[in-house]
Amino acid sequence: MDKLRTDLSNLGEILSSIFPEDQKAKAQTYFLKKLSLKMHEFYGGKMQSIPKAGIFGFNWFNVWYTPGVSSVSTAIRDDNSLSFALSNRSNLVAVVSDGTRVLGDGDCTPAGGLGVMEGKAMLMKYLGGLDAIALCINNRDRSGRPDPGKIIDFVKMLEPSVGAVNLEDISQPNCYRVLDELRTECSIPVWHDDAQGTACVTLAGLINALKLTDKSISSVKTVLFGAGASNTTIASFLLQSGLDPDKLIIFDSKGSLHKNREDLKANPGKYKQWTLAQKTNPLRVEGIETALNGADVLIALSTPGPNTIKPEWISHMATKSIVFTCANPVPEIYPHDAQQAGAYIVATGRGDFPNQINNSCGFPGILKGALLSKATKITDKMAIRAAHALADFAEKRGISPQNIVPTMDEAEVFPHEAAEVAIQAIADGVAPSGLTYEQVFQRASQDIQNARLATQKLIQDGFIQEPPHALLQHALQETITAIKKV
Amino acid sequence: MDKLRTDLSNLGEILSSIFPEDQKAKAQTYFLKKLSLKMHEFYGGKMQSIPKAGIFGFNWFNVWYTPGVSSVSTAIRDDNSLSFALSNRSNLVAVVSDGTRVLGDGDCTPAGGLGVMEGKAMLMKYLGGLDAIALCINNRDRSGRPDPGKIIDFVKMLEPSVGAVNLEDISQPNCYRVLDELRTECSIPVWHDDAQGTACVTLAGLINALKLTDKSISSVKTVLFGAGASNTTIASFLLQSGLDPDKLIIFDSKGSLHKNREDLKANPGKYKQWTLAQKTNPLRVEGIETALNGADVLIALSTPGPNTIKPEWISHMATKSIVFTCANPVPEIYPHDAQQAGAYIVATGRGDFPNQINNSCGFPGILKGALLSKATKITDKMAIRAAHALADFAEKRGISPQNIVPTMDEAEVFPHEAAEVAIQAIADGVAPSGLTYEQVFQRASQDIQNARLATQKLIQDGFIQEPPHALLQHALQETITAIKKV
Repeated sequence: MDKLRTDLSNLGEILSSIFPEDQKAKAQTYFLKKLSLKMHEFYGGKMQSIPKAGIFGFNWFNVWYTPGVSSVSTAIRDDNSLSFALSNRSNLVAVVSDGTRVLGDGDCTPAGGLGVMEGKAMLMKYLGGLDAIALCINNRDRSGRPDPGKIIDFVKMLEPSVGAVNLEDISQPNCYRVLDELRTECSIPVWHDDAQGTACVTLAGLINALKLTDKSISSVKTVLFGAGASNTTIASFLLQSGLDPDKLIIFDSKGSLHKNREDLKANPGKYKQWTLAQKTNPLRVEGIETALNGADVLIALSTPGPNTIKPEWISHMATKSIVFTCANPVPEIYPHDAQQAGAYIVATGRGDFPNQINNSCGFPGILKGALLSKATKITDKMAIRAAHALADFAEKRGISPQNIVPTMDEAEVFPHEAAEVAIQAIADGVAPSGLTYEQVFQRASQDIQNARLATQKLIQDGFIQEPPHALLQHALQETITAIKKV
Repeated sequence: MDKLRTDLSNLGEILSSIFPEDQKAKAQTYFLKKLSLKMHEFYGGKMQSIPKAGIFGFNWFNVWYTPGVSSVSTAIRDDNSLSFALSNRSNLVAVVSDGTRVLGDGDCTPAGGLGVMEGKAMLMKYLGGLDAIALCINNRDRSGRPDPGKIIDFVKMLEPSVGAVNLEDISQPNCYRVLDELRTECSIPVWHDDAQGTACVTLAGLINALKLTDKSISSVKTVLFGAGASNTTIASFLLQSGLDPDKLIIFDSKGSLHKNREDLKANPGKYKQWTLAQKTNPLRVEGIETALNGADVLIALSTPGPNTIKPEWISHMATKSIVFTCANPVPEIYPHDAQQAGAYIVATGRGDFPNQINNSCGFPGILKGALLSKATKITDKMAIRAAHALADFAEKRGISPQNIVPTMDEAEVFPHEAAEVAIQAIADGVAPSGLTYEQVFQRASQDIQNARLATQKLIQDGFIQEPPHALLQHALQETITAIKKV
């Protein structure tokens, strides 16, 4: 067995040399989880705070703190809008979660969300040049139930300290109320990555998939499988992009959405689903097999697979069918099975398969653009424009059925996205005019480059140590033992 | 006029060459405020977030984020105490304020506190090796009044994300209720720097002043002028340290505290003052002049001066009298006036006079010790032990009437303080046993050294730019013009 490289670039090779193909994906996930635990413990988490302003000797604390800082306090007191120019607020995103739906792991208690939210803060910095703080909050009431009103109160109290709020991993239906109320009441952007974020990158993928299949959004027959925060927002983005509602069928756990679904009508927590039920699926098609018969596009964001979507359903789709199965950590059907069943373009949420529909390509650029433009909110049009920026960027450097969207290591995509979003914010009247595309692009590029270079410098200079190689090797050994045992 | 150096080391000289002594202090404050405003704008605030963990290529996002991080989410879900080991929580302090009493500037609105709280976060890092986030929260009710209950709710929700909370600049009487309730209900340390913090460094100064005057705490006659959060806690620390309550007289804005003060008895917001009123000043001395007649110690934390304390009051104190006048930004009486009136040792809150009683010498070491020891609270004994650590450190390197306490550029003091605090936490039963003094000292030393070196590296490598010298010179020119005009 080769030695595992520190950049993990030969992990796949090593696992392939040990496991058959069907065990390899499982082994890889097992390894990454093992290593993640060891590494989080080794480093004691992932993010730190550090000065961004010069300390040229101790006299400078008289500038940064008392007595000098008094002028900053009174300037902001007299004009609160100066808080953006005189503090780090204008580059700061709060990643807020109550930990009730942490990625694929459900309710993990408030503190259980810290790994994910700190990870998100890391992505904000490394990909978007944004500062971020991970706030996993305890909104449980006396009976232990999460109270959406408490998240709302918390964020409203927090507002003066940050430039934007990224809501994350809040379970349904609370996430809708929290988002809607905060978007109305806050005068800074409130972003829900599971809704607008996922919808943006999914739309980006679909735009390029349609190009590759010579189909147009106005004519495709589309099925959405799952009707949570992500898919309801995707439906909305698709309809805003020209999808024919008569050709859209959406499924939730009880079947297809249509205007006879009295259960949705009666449930105030399901008002987004009910709105969609009234304007889609006019023929009230009930079964998923019937719905997929001749369909061009399937977008599944439902229950982790691999057997949630059956190969035989896909085999009756139209020619050059587009199948996005994005449940995490395991897609509703594995890509090779979907392709074998006839799918032409397949995308998932996973980085170890082609065509990852990856939120990390969206939010860092979108939030950077929103903050640089001083937008007070992020409109759907801004997120849709970001989707086009992503799609166009990929098209320019070349797309194929196995490569429809940018990956997050394409650093150049984020400043483009930020600039497009900023310009749309101005056009939508949610940001002051004045900034140009080029100005936003340059500033975003520089901030992102600095974030990456500074991180790498901290590694080179030994402030961030390289982990003992034995820890990596040990995680690998544990993986081999555990997977072989099964 | 010489060129102002970037480290500001010749600022005093330059101002002395232009202004007479009585205008120099004023000019210096004016300059620091001007420069502070320009510098905050130049850098866009003071603190940033950046990774503390290695990113060795993009594959590592599979470790730090999905799918690897799932093991962290579920591990913390199953045992919430692991959140300290697996996230940055164990080194993270939230600096929380409602901006109602920002240093010397009163109510600055919530966002108005950002300059000070971000400054505090900077000091936490540079002096204590701690990460910190500045949270200035909007706790105003519909009528615009600050609601202490909302601060309490906010911090309780925030608790799972941080290792400690530093309450700051919350006006009376709200600060008492907030502190008392949070200290009872949170299982992480809740520190109020205006109370325990100021009391710690004041006690440190007094310990050494008593050594230099050959007086003992049990025999000195003491007057506290001002009965806010700081002086009530100082009174408590002094009594816990052996001060005779019969020899203590405390003044608030209405006169001296004693057991006939029915107004205090009747006011639930004044319960701390009422408690002190009942056990001190048994002779019910009423006037400040009488109280100070023959007193050994005066500690004033009241209204900014310079004429709050009269020279003639000081002139009737005992020989070798100790006078701390710590109002900010201007002491109750200027040191040279106090000395001329007969004071033997004088201390203030200002860094430009000798003997600065500076909270920045306290909280970074105390909170570092509390966090490293995993203390659930910071007892008075821990803060008092920190005071002794400060005093002993100064004594070892030499003390004199003009030099009774460490200054914040004596980096070695903080690890000592942290280690003493940690050992006391274990002794008090608020932290698990096991850690040794040496372990805490080493870890704190390393973290603090890394914080400083990393910051200086960011400057050297150009990630933090040096400000254009013209901005410094311009602030100086504006100062000269403005002060000469007066």
